[in-house]
Amino acid sequence: MTEKDLIELAASVKPPDRAVWVLAAERLDNLTKPPGSLGRLEEIAGRIAAIQGRVKPVITKKRIYTLAGDHGVTAEGVSPYPKEVTPQMVLNFIAGGAAINVLARHAGAEVRVVDVGVDFDFPPDTPGLLNRKVGRGTANLALGPAMTRGEVVAAMGVGIQLADEAAADGVNLLGVGEMGIGNTTPSAAILSVFAGIAPEEAVGRGTGIDDAGLLKKAAVVRRGIEVNRPEQGDPLGVLEKVGGFEIAAMAGLYLGAAAKGIPVVADGFISGAAALAAVRFCPEVAGYLFLSHLSGERGHAALVEALGQKPVLDLNMRLGEGTGAALAISLIEASTKIISEMATFAEAGVSNKEG
Amino acid sequence: MTEKDLIELAASVKPPDRAVWVLAAERLDNLTKPPGSLGRLEEIAGRIAAIQGRVKPVITKKRIYTLAGDHGVTAEGVSPYPKEVTPQMVLNFIAGGAAINVLARHAGAEVRVVDVGVDFDFPPDTPGLLNRKVGRGTANLALGPAMTRGEVVAAMGVGIQLADEAAADGVNLLGVGEMGIGNTTPSAAILSVFAGIAPEEAVGRGTGIDDAGLLKKAAVVRRGIEVNRPEQGDPLGVLEKVGGFEIAAMAGLYLGAAAKGIPVVADGFISGAAALAAVRFCPEVAGYLFLSHLSGERGHAALVEALGQKPVLDLNMRLGEGTGAALAISLIEASTKIISEMATFAEAGVSNKEG
Repeated sequence: MTEKDLIELAASVKPPDRAVWVLAAERLDNLTKPPGSLGRLEEIAGRIAAIQGRVKPVITKKRIYTLAGDHGVTAEGVSPYPKEVTPQMVLNFIAGGAAINVLARHAGAEVRVVDVGVDFDFPPDTPGLLNRKVGRGTANLALGPAMTRGEVVAAMGVGIQLADEAAADGVNLLGVGEMGIGNTTPSAAILSVFAGIAPEEAVGRGTGIDDAGLLKKAAVVRRGIEVNRPEQGDPLGVLEKVGGFEIAAMAGLYLGAAAKGIPVVADGFISGAAALAAVRFCPEVAGYLFLSHLSGERGHAALVEALGQKPVLDLNMRLGEGTGAALAISLIEASTKIISEMATFAEAGVSNKEG
Repeated sequence: MTEKDLIELAASVKPPDRAVWVLAAERLDNLTKPPGSLGRLEEIAGRIAAIQGRVKPVITKKRIYTLAGDHGVTAEGVSPYPKEVTPQMVLNFIAGGAAINVLARHAGAEVRVVDVGVDFDFPPDTPGLLNRKVGRGTANLALGPAMTRGEVVAAMGVGIQLADEAAADGVNLLGVGEMGIGNTTPSAAILSVFAGIAPEEAVGRGTGIDDAGLLKKAAVVRRGIEVNRPEQGDPLGVLEKVGGFEIAAMAGLYLGAAAKGIPVVADGFISGAAALAAVRFCPEVAGYLFLSHLSGERGHAALVEALGQKPVLDLNMRLGEGTGAALAISLIEASTKIISEMATFAEAGVSNKEG
């Protein structure tokens, strides 16, 4: 995978089928309910129909990728948790005891845990862990670039490969989540650069930092941007300078999913920052992207605005891992059942609106 | 069932177990996630734990009752659909082709369709239909009381019996929905009386009435209140004067569920109006009540405020039937799995927050 490959892949992404979208909207109006009365379920059903290119879309296989990476910026004290929690939580994912496991099981989705950049050597044959390590934690973005450009391309390549594997396995709905102590800091930096907002507006409490920590975190983001001078017109450069391994891999995953025509659901703040990078690199990705929930993390509202899409849920969640994506996946699947399984007025012998 | 029986049942409702709630909150804080990071899922999990009286609650059987009734006020032209649609949709529910069937199947909940007051004689042994008819449509509330007080008590008795049957069948999560052409009009009247807001603020477009229809609908609600003079201190009287058979039955269902200690999920505007009547009749019902979604129907925000609870979802839905309840039931069940199935920090060997 080279930078040229990425550019070619981005150029290859086609928009969802608008003609099918129109037919889907017609079908939705003929189902036994007042037109539009299922609100966002109808909007989502129409989008999935257009993506799948059929008026009666079906979701048969759901997968959530939870990508893990560490961050050199934790040296600045931006998280109340020690960075050892990243590999510990990876092992918790594999054991099935984390929130993402519970919620993915509930949604009937499988979870694939991927080490893209954890600063820990897992045993080579750890069952249930995909080893796609590009590096052992990023460099401290407050002092210089978090990664090299080559690492960004490699990490994006990991995500693209994951999307390819999902497509080969028949997955037709993807969720994207992450784990990485410290990763709300690079995400805030990415948001600040792309949305053109101040670091102070982009940062939030992450896993629960206190007031003093929040001020420090904003200062760290500000310093990272001043030191590295990322340019919003160069998304790969933004990821290189203030991103992370799992963030770049997620950006690749969105791009790869769009290239394969698979709808892909972002989780919250960090996966949203990766989605913003992907959309800036390839605007057509937006057609395949669904925002699962409005995170309780401050800055997410600005991120959502930059992505120009309303999230499906608003449950004041801020955990990450793909937990919001798991919940939204079930609602998205429900929307496809509405358009595919409901009876029309004619089929059910129900009188339609008068006049 | 007499009015005295209703009063006694209301007096028998106990609040959820506060001691278990505290223990549930402690357990939630020890699970492998930052405290509070699952937002409303944690809040819901705590409430269900307190209702079930155990720190690890389980949902094993979910049922949605969809109650149907007709409304004499349709003579005023308050709906764009003919009232024949009520029995037609009941038959659609039974055939499994309606939105509630699709969404309940998706949530793993069964649907029970109940005729409480449809103005149509279904064949006596219609499979899948519970015949609990109290009357054939209400009287026109714009001209006088919609029901007699005896009919209100009988309809509430129907709802209480449904809750009892659910409890006997081992149902531990109930959803409440409805079907009845014209029933946003009595619901707006109920809201107007209990919340003390003007009819103009309480009415909405229902299944899709136009601007002129909306003005007429507000005038009808205003006339119904002026003619009948319902008093907010007498909830049964409010139902008698401006309610409906299925609305009174839903009020009884909430009361019966609370009396049996079963969490019960209101759907949208009409089922919410019934919930408001139930809570005004028996304030302890609120402890067992969950609001599934913020309806797109104007007036629902005021109703939600009167009920003092934030809905789980906001998807601009306004169909009724129990469709919002079906979606929320899945999220409520997910919340119980979080508290019951996730690993604690100690179990997973994950480091907790520093300091």
